[in-house]
Amino acid sequence: MSKGITSQSENYAAWYTDVVVKAGLADYGPVKGTMVIKPYGFALWELIKDTFDKMIKDTGHVNAYFPLFIPKSFLAKEADHIEGFAKECAVVTHTRLMSDENKGIIVDPDSRLDEEVIVRPTSETVIWSMYKKWIQSYRDLPLLINQWANVVRWEMRTRLFLRTTEFLWQEGHTAHESSEEAEKETLLILELYRKLAEDYLAMPVLTGLKSESEKFAGADETYCIEAMMKDKRALQAGTSHNLGQNFAKAFDVTFQSKDNKEEFVYATSWGVSTRLVGGVIMTHGDEKGLRLPPKIAPYQVVLIPIFKNEDEINIIKDYIDPILKELRENHIRVHEDWRKESPGFKFNEWEVKGAPLRLEIGLRDIKNNSIMIARRDTGEKKEISKNKLVKQIPELLEKIQSSLFNQALKFRNKNTHTVTSYDEFKEIIENNDGFVRCGWDGDSKTEEAIKNETKATIRVILFDEKPKNRVCIFTGRPAKHEVIFAKAY
Amino acid sequence: MSKGITSQSENYAAWYTDVVVKAGLADYGPVKGTMVIKPYGFALWELIKDTFDKMIKDTGHVNAYFPLFIPKSFLAKEADHIEGFAKECAVVTHTRLMSDENKGIIVDPDSRLDEEVIVRPTSETVIWSMYKKWIQSYRDLPLLINQWANVVRWEMRTRLFLRTTEFLWQEGHTAHESSEEAEKETLLILELYRKLAEDYLAMPVLTGLKSESEKFAGADETYCIEAMMKDKRALQAGTSHNLGQNFAKAFDVTFQSKDNKEEFVYATSWGVSTRLVGGVIMTHGDEKGLRLPPKIAPYQVVLIPIFKNEDEINIIKDYIDPILKELRENHIRVHEDWRKESPGFKFNEWEVKGAPLRLEIGLRDIKNNSIMIARRDTGEKKEISKNKLVKQIPELLEKIQSSLFNQALKFRNKNTHTVTSYDEFKEIIENNDGFVRCGWDGDSKTEEAIKNETKATIRVILFDEKPKNRVCIFTGRPAKHEVIFAKAY
Repeated sequence: MSKGITSQSENYAAWYTDVVVKAGLADYGPVKGTMVIKPYGFALWELIKDTFDKMIKDTGHVNAYFPLFIPKSFLAKEADHIEGFAKECAVVTHTRLMSDENKGIIVDPDSRLDEEVIVRPTSETVIWSMYKKWIQSYRDLPLLINQWANVVRWEMRTRLFLRTTEFLWQEGHTAHESSEEAEKETLLILELYRKLAEDYLAMPVLTGLKSESEKFAGADETYCIEAMMKDKRALQAGTSHNLGQNFAKAFDVTFQSKDNKEEFVYATSWGVSTRLVGGVIMTHGDEKGLRLPPKIAPYQVVLIPIFKNEDEINIIKDYIDPILKELRENHIRVHEDWRKESPGFKFNEWEVKGAPLRLEIGLRDIKNNSIMIARRDTGEKKEISKNKLVKQIPELLEKIQSSLFNQALKFRNKNTHTVTSYDEFKEIIENNDGFVRCGWDGDSKTEEAIKNETKATIRVILFDEKPKNRVCIFTGRPAKHEVIFAKAY
Repeated sequence: MSKGITSQSENYAAWYTDVVVKAGLADYGPVKGTMVIKPYGFALWELIKDTFDKMIKDTGHVNAYFPLFIPKSFLAKEADHIEGFAKECAVVTHTRLMSDENKGIIVDPDSRLDEEVIVRPTSETVIWSMYKKWIQSYRDLPLLINQWANVVRWEMRTRLFLRTTEFLWQEGHTAHESSEEAEKETLLILELYRKLAEDYLAMPVLTGLKSESEKFAGADETYCIEAMMKDKRALQAGTSHNLGQNFAKAFDVTFQSKDNKEEFVYATSWGVSTRLVGGVIMTHGDEKGLRLPPKIAPYQVVLIPIFKNEDEINIIKDYIDPILKELRENHIRVHEDWRKESPGFKFNEWEVKGAPLRLEIGLRDIKNNSIMIARRDTGEKKEISKNKLVKQIPELLEKIQSSLFNQALKFRNKNTHTVTSYDEFKEIIENNDGFVRCGWDGDSKTEEAIKNETKATIRVILFDEKPKNRVCIFTGRPAKHEVIFAKAY
């Protein structure tokens, strides 16, 4: 256990907050429920963002920007949508402040808006009000637009990165001429999300459908990627929605089809958010702090020189500079920590911050023509010959990347239990023992009854489900689906 | 004059809006004063953003993200600051909607906030409330943080990109241990802004100080880059503020100095916004639409194939594909327009959209082993041998980049008048004849009197001013400064 970080086993929630704060990822903002993403946390988010931005551009999507403010009336146009978001909307009602002799600065009552505006909780409504102007014919389709933006959902219980009043995300909003094309898009994006999570964040995910009660407010179908955190709870890490014609109907968006008919447009929407950063922390973090997958680590290699005086600094610089230069030319993200703190202090700090590789170098190493290298994921430390370093670092980074993924996969598989009795089910859930894989009769009432008794929800109806010959864990009726139940963030 | 675009000379404001809309840069949002940045406009902004992001990272700055919402009380902590922003603040007062039998969806009166929150018009206050937590000692300094964010200033008269209720920008907020270091930072950023404007946007700018009345609300000094638009009005294109200790005092942010004293921290802040896109349009646009500088053009080269049928499409593709591949490998941004519209329609569209180079290719060109190439900036069109294309395109793009800059510079110089009599001054301003360079006695009252009479304001106190032996254009008193007066956006 590192200084100032609560032990995971003692109190997982406290461990999480300690890591977020001590690693310099984020801090609490002054308005309740808001978060400041600090430079180190933001660099991590930028790498995730740039990775996914490239993926969607490579598949024909373009970025745009839609307004933060939505007329109140828009939200009400899609019945499920308003139902889903009404209870967490920040509402702007006035547009001026003024001085008051007694009360100081007050809201100017004369600046009251005729129609209140909502700070977007998501942008389907404002975007489909624009698509109505932009779409006339099948020639205008598909529209494959994404935006990187902040959204607001007023939350009562907040948690850094996982649940905050304001968060950053990307939201894709596409328009299509057929149901099949919309479905294909929904699944393409889900696959990109899986790839982002598994190949970059080293976070294994289950993929499949959400049940009716868990799907997006306004969607026909919601697909998701679902991950297991180290406390064995589930994290919904990304969702891709087939919206059918719901928003096209709400905003009256029709197009002239190839065979000259007037039809409602088909839609999808999809998003991942800064919540992914929380997922990375809770998938890989250990008692010492963060362990970052190299592909998204702001610094993949941190150099910690060990020196007593300026002369030694110069000797070390002469020795290491050409190597660092070569590493940087090979697109390795290197940080040099020349601060005048003790090596032990720095080791600890970069362990908390989860830098994948640490280089230590002092005069003794220079004599040996070597460098000491330490892996954050295993703690393993060894001397490497100076000549081999540039070649070995990328190999080591790849090893760490796949090792983190494999550890997390093993952990998830070990803690996923296929069960056939409800007693077993309850025992696992009550003991926080992981995911339960079981049959479900497909009835929302069954789902609700289980939730009320155990707090477990259906996380995902698996793509690879085999419901045949299985029965519902709760009612004993024939299973319609095989699903994952778990407690979730 | 292009179809559907008002002539510049007839009505410049209408020309501007026509170009923004017809080029697909932006559209009006549903809430008054808001803007949708469409994919083509956003791609332009992304290139500007990425360019500047690299500049600030190369000079040691890091990105972070601070909350959208600011407690009302924070804004009031710096007296000039609240004065400057009180009249244009979006205020959030409630957090829920509910159904009302008679009125439909209404704001839930029970969700009223105890303290209203402001949607950030700029982030000095929220950021300095955090810096108070983060800064204790000189070891914590300098803090060189930037954020890319949306901000809101409730505007009555709005104009796409130039003045909208919500806009996108970057805002840098740095903290320093000395006044000199803060001043150095302020000027470093001003130089980066000049570079961004001149070397990338091909927009010549004047640099210098703002007068007291034009400076940022809360700053000691505001430096700016100021450009001339084609209607000869001025555009403030970026500002860099030395905030002195004003915000440190307002938020009680002190640090322990190297000689062990408790001192208030020194601050800067600086921003450029999507307004730059408006600047690009009005610096280079002509009667046909946009003319984009190659360095920030989403597509530097647009290919327009001329074909009658699928066979011809295939022949053209075979001919051009290897060339396009090579161009892309050389990081040229190429777009191929294979839509089944007439070539004339496409020529017109890409002229409106301002793509720097157009390639035309039909069977006749293939026979000649050549390609037709047209420059958007000059309209010049010539046949180039196929073999020379890959080499000539980067050269042509560079030529266009510098030619656009030189044209704009010549235009500004021609329309900047050094005057010594107030009659001359008034004539120039009344006739919208450009910038006036003249002496000013340094008195705010003089400035105000001139503004009231002519609507011209001091745009910049020039770095290269020579006030010696000059007199104030208005009072005849000895000139304290040589300044640029103009009507401005």
